[in-house]
Amino acid sequence: MYRTIEWLDDTNEVRLVDQTKLPLVTSHIVTSSHERIARTIKIMEIRGAPAIGAAAGMGMALAAIESKARTKDELLDSLEKAAVTLNTRPTAVNLTWATARMLDVARGAEGDADTIVRKLIDEAKEIAEEDVRMCRKIGENALAYIKPGFTIQTICNAGSLATVHLGTVGAVIRVAHEKYNGDIKVYAAETRPRQQGARLTTYEFMEDGIDTTLITDGMIGTVFKEGRVDCCVVGSDRTFRTGHVTNKIGTYTMAITAKYHNIPFYVAIPMSTIDWETDPE
Amino acid sequence: MYRTIEWLDDTNEVRLVDQTKLPLVTSHIVTSSHERIARTIKIMEIRGAPAIGAAAGMGMALAAIESKARTKDELLDSLEKAAVTLNTRPTAVNLTWATARMLDVARGAEGDADTIVRKLIDEAKEIAEEDVRMCRKIGENALAYIKPGFTIQTICNAGSLATVHLGTVGAVIRVAHEKYNGDIKVYAAETRPRQQGARLTTYEFMEDGIDTTLITDGMIGTVFKEGRVDCCVVGSDRTFRTGHVTNKIGTYTMAITAKYHNIPFYVAIPMSTIDWETDPE
Repeated sequence: MYRTIEWLDDTNEVRLVDQTKLPLVTSHIVTSSHERIARTIKIMEIRGAPAIGAAAGMGMALAAIESKARTKDELLDSLEKAAVTLNTRPTAVNLTWATARMLDVARGAEGDADTIVRKLIDEAKEIAEEDVRMCRKIGENALAYIKPGFTIQTICNAGSLATVHLGTVGAVIRVAHEKYNGDIKVYAAETRPRQQGARLTTYEFMEDGIDTTLITDGMIGTVFKEGRVDCCVVGSDRTFRTGHVTNKIGTYTMAITAKYHNIPFYVAIPMSTIDWETDPE
Repeated sequence: MYRTIEWLDDTNEVRLVDQTKLPLVTSHIVTSSHERIARTIKIMEIRGAPAIGAAAGMGMALAAIESKARTKDELLDSLEKAAVTLNTRPTAVNLTWATARMLDVARGAEGDADTIVRKLIDEAKEIAEEDVRMCRKIGENALAYIKPGFTIQTICNAGSLATVHLGTVGAVIRVAHEKYNGDIKVYAAETRPRQQGARLTTYEFMEDGIDTTLITDGMIGTVFKEGRVDCCVVGSDRTFRTGHVTNKIGTYTMAITAKYHNIPFYVAIPMSTIDWETDPE
């Protein structure tokens, strides 16, 4: 399985899969321009909060290289402009989080401009690696709930394409697939109106050789009734301290239908999606 | 509101709406050829059990005219061939029912060929009129359950386009709309995978000036939770003596979700869809 986004050490370029062409064409964008990265975020060639965060971090590292700055002040000036350029989607918290983190590293760094640029490259790669580790941990923690032979119902895409690697729901399924020698099946709901389940989830699991069945959202009750599904695992855009989950429309209908059929319903999330502040009621 | 299919007395032609072009283009097919009628059924220019039955009846009447038969035997010979031609869809019970009914009328009729042809035209029109009366009766009976101001959730198309006029669910909504001076709203589920809710139901209710909101199948739970819907009314392809209903996939998920939210769930059917024989378990 390829990474959604990665840093190429040999050329100091960023390589990311163009999600607008999936599932019919798998093609990559390779760039050394932070403005091109900003554009990939803006036009959704990359999407999914963790993947966008990684892209923003790498975009800042590219901007540092592009700046050809000789002093720390020159470099900071370029980075501040790049942060504005990269913040293309006002609602994406991961964008501001990643660009601020990169700026902090630059501000706090000692040494000449070249040294700071190298630190920024390392930090961008670390942001991506943290995401990879976090996803794997989600998958490993979930093994307690996923038995060999399970068929898992999901909706929308919380797979590797929304993160750097593995995904959140994607990790639950991939780690189980790995530990149980492939003895795991997936039912992916199409996910109206934009079909991320059909276009992205089904695509990426099939690429990994995972037994995946695409169903329409309206079929969920029927596959539950027929006993085809052992548990549901979905992602979450935002999770409240009360445990309330916000996710793609259709998740609610699926949850009620699962409850009616006594099918366990799990939400796979990283800590970063937990909103400790907002009152959900 | 136009009729889905009708007999044109002036020219002895059949006029029907081409459902393959809806909702973007409203165009009619006008024909005096029973073979053309067979083709409209085969390629689904007309669909919906009652509408198909009416088409088959009118196709038989056209075949009678086309035959230019001078004797009853010649006429019966032509009609038997036409019945085979018109039975293009083996699962459509209404096709065999309507062609058999027309053959029975021809076989039992007295008089010369012209007289029998006239009887056949009358019978074909009567098949259509029975459907119109039946639908209106469904709508009137349903008034006991539908209050002014109700918002009604439906799925798929059990509207006028599936029948000759009004529809089954369509009649429930249209008669209430008429009696309550338009104080009725509809939520139409898109109906995956073929989108009959989006393409047909939304189209035909909007044509009639009924306040109609299109939602995806996955949104059903959310609109229920938000209190936007007062009751559900759906059609049925086949209804068993036990009350079990078979209908488009998605109806089951909708029913469970309605139950969870204590929303009344009604099925609008003509007697002809009741299967008294088959054991549903």
